[in-house]
Amino acid sequence: MEEVLEEIIPSEQEKRELEQTTEFVKNRVNEIAKDYEISVEPRLVGSSSRGTWISGDRDIDVFILLPKTLEEEEFRQKGLKIAREVAQEADTYQEDYAEHPYITARFGSFLVDLVPAYDVEDASEVTSAVDRTPLHDRYVSKRLDDELKKCIRLLKKFMKSNNVYGAELKVKGFSGYLTELLVLEYGKKGQSGIESFKDVLRASGNWKKGQVIDLEDHGVKQKFDAPLIVIDPIDPNRNVAAALEMEQWAKFIGASMAYLENSKKSFFVENREKEYSSEELVKTIEERKTRLIGLEFNLPDLVDDTLYPQLYKTENWLKKLLRQEEFDLIRSGVYRDNEKALVLFEVWNDLPRVEKHIGPPVTSKKHSKSFIEKYKNQEVFCGPYIEKDRWVVERKREYVHPENLIEQKTEDIKQSGIGKNLKRVDKKVLSGPSLLKEKYLSFIGDFLTKKAVWLD
Amino acid sequence: MEEVLEEIIPSEQEKRELEQTTEFVKNRVNEIAKDYEISVEPRLVGSSSRGTWISGDRDIDVFILLPKTLEEEEFRQKGLKIAREVAQEADTYQEDYAEHPYITARFGSFLVDLVPAYDVEDASEVTSAVDRTPLHDRYVSKRLDDELKKCIRLLKKFMKSNNVYGAELKVKGFSGYLTELLVLEYGKKGQSGIESFKDVLRASGNWKKGQVIDLEDHGVKQKFDAPLIVIDPIDPNRNVAAALEMEQWAKFIGASMAYLENSKKSFFVENREKEYSSEELVKTIEERKTRLIGLEFNLPDLVDDTLYPQLYKTENWLKKLLRQEEFDLIRSGVYRDNEKALVLFEVWNDLPRVEKHIGPPVTSKKHSKSFIEKYKNQEVFCGPYIEKDRWVVERKREYVHPENLIEQKTEDIKQSGIGKNLKRVDKKVLSGPSLLKEKYLSFIGDFLTKKAVWLD
Repeated sequence: MEEVLEEIIPSEQEKRELEQTTEFVKNRVNEIAKDYEISVEPRLVGSSSRGTWISGDRDIDVFILLPKTLEEEEFRQKGLKIAREVAQEADTYQEDYAEHPYITARFGSFLVDLVPAYDVEDASEVTSAVDRTPLHDRYVSKRLDDELKKCIRLLKKFMKSNNVYGAELKVKGFSGYLTELLVLEYGKKGQSGIESFKDVLRASGNWKKGQVIDLEDHGVKQKFDAPLIVIDPIDPNRNVAAALEMEQWAKFIGASMAYLENSKKSFFVENREKEYSSEELVKTIEERKTRLIGLEFNLPDLVDDTLYPQLYKTENWLKKLLRQEEFDLIRSGVYRDNEKALVLFEVWNDLPRVEKHIGPPVTSKKHSKSFIEKYKNQEVFCGPYIEKDRWVVERKREYVHPENLIEQKTEDIKQSGIGKNLKRVDKKVLSGPSLLKEKYLSFIGDFLTKKAVWLD
Repeated sequence: MEEVLEEIIPSEQEKRELEQTTEFVKNRVNEIAKDYEISVEPRLVGSSSRGTWISGDRDIDVFILLPKTLEEEEFRQKGLKIAREVAQEADTYQEDYAEHPYITARFGSFLVDLVPAYDVEDASEVTSAVDRTPLHDRYVSKRLDDELKKCIRLLKKFMKSNNVYGAELKVKGFSGYLTELLVLEYGKKGQSGIESFKDVLRASGNWKKGQVIDLEDHGVKQKFDAPLIVIDPIDPNRNVAAALEMEQWAKFIGASMAYLENSKKSFFVENREKEYSSEELVKTIEERKTRLIGLEFNLPDLVDDTLYPQLYKTENWLKKLLRQEEFDLIRSGVYRDNEKALVLFEVWNDLPRVEKHIGPPVTSKKHSKSFIEKYKNQEVFCGPYIEKDRWVVERKREYVHPENLIEQKTEDIKQSGIGKNLKRVDKKVLSGPSLLKEKYLSFIGDFLTKKAVWLD
């Protein structure tokens, strides 16, 4: 554990580099603001401000705090103006958009988010999620000592290694702030960070669905439907864990329990990329006797937080269709690289050509009559006949191969349930060898052989 | 309809033959009883006594009525003694057993059942089902005129043609007595038999599940769980339709409705045997893309009423097993000829080799731990991993081919759910070409292409 701590606590050198970059950016904000005679305060926020970032992280959040008195329009314009001008001096930069526009600029090895926000005193003045960040900073920082900071770093590393860290829509896991609140709830000031870390794991190993954490004893005023409910200390109407998906919640619990049983180092290893050859995967699929089908899109120009919900939407729509047509879906998943996005399905065999279609009960005169009328001269395998108390026919099934279903249902873009921006890009249905491209091997290999990471 | 009536009303010649055979048997009973100084009354009962039998039927029931004062033991002995002695004069005979032993003897073209029964005055004295028959005779006969007899004959023929006539365990359909009660309920004395027949069909076309018919206004004293409840006029605690299975009930309703829509003669055609070639069936199965598997037994020496429940038991046990192992069962059925009995299944394709096995929720510490322990070193396709909030593994499926399941589960005769007497005879699992024996073609062809008979 000491070993892990050594890896994740930033070195003095690393701290200095971060401070220097931050100072440079803050100074530029001040200078530019002065030129335009705008009253602003540049502020470092988030984990680098709280002293809870992990060695190797290169993300710095600098907020450009503007007075609450500015109108929305003016606030946007002025904030973004300053951010853009600062970014001119970066190596590269791009504008992104969450609730408000902001800029991500690369200074050397650091990625600096330049985010305009209102300078607010408490939650009642908050107009968007970013305004809340400085309040979170203040709340957390006041309550931490060095050991609790170690504890937070351990917990973040543990979550990253188990692929449950991050509230972004790709992960739907634990946000940094959520992680910190867990440590404030279950850790103890004055005891070693390692002990506090174990306290957090022990506590979460005992969570039940709907567990409530309420640090400021606000009382739960709203009904939250979530596996974990963490009342925001600065805003009792907010569940900090709202973005946390049940599966990620469960994966954290599973890992916590297992770690307490056997504290091996593999719980803290990130990015265990395995290599698979296409021959190996062909064999695996052969052995499973199932079918893999992928829907591949040319990647549209979107940030992950916009892309992933559209991929998930497409995935869910096709899952529903496959099940409707009686295919047995084993699993599905999504993937992206720099060129393509892939929605992947594993389905049990093809279906038989014959499909049993249950009709009305014989006692329902009208419906029985029209059912018989409809099918008596139609080409069916069998029937109409009576089973139990209902009319039945066995007719020709429309979709025997899952590829055909996906091919046809995605053809008419307007009708389809494909994510908005994905509708406009080229797509292709892949199966068999066409799917086993070099660049997909690692994703497909993990997809087929997945296992809790710490079991390896 | 007149045409049908001509076919089913026995000719004078036929009536005479039946009367002569009956007289001969009754006389023999009297003579033999006199020799032994036993007081008996031989009585013709059932449809031939009520004048409701259909031309071509060759079954005669002669009851040997013994005094109610006899003890059970003496009753059995004496009754059977007389029956046996009468049967000595038959061409062939055999002893069968329902609630009591009785004898079936062939005299020329007639099959005469010689049944010892107590001579009782009302239902309170009844000791077994056969004792009731003379009471049913009396009840029905008193209420019939010639037109109602025609109506009953039409209804029986209609039911036979639709394979729903007969209360025996092979059919589980409408008994003769039940048919007669339906006519007494819905037909009208004094109107033409044909009109009464239509009245019966019209009424049954309006049945709902649990329909009650109570000719003597006994009131329903017991709770009967059956699609049709016909209170026995001579015994209010008995549902005359108790043996009627829902599917047979529904097939009768379906046929009734259809007949009233379109009164074609095909509703009265029995035994529509179709011919199928094995090439034809191979093609049909190919097209359906399904699997047929049969379990074939050497026929044990049993009457149908004992054999069929055992075949059904075997069928139901294997249906349950197939479904447990996740095979998609399309249909099943049983068949017998003079040498073999066959239990047949049609199943969707083989299953994939991989089987998803859902484990405990992660929040359940003890079970999660032992689940992981169990599977982490076992050879599995995938996992343990977490899906939603549960542990999952994908392991090797035990049964991929339905034949193997049936083969293995029927191997250990003692453990198996095979019908009692079927356990002791040789059996074989058949599939593919080995199933398409000449003698099974007609059964398998109908099994695969079944259709309400009147739709052809």
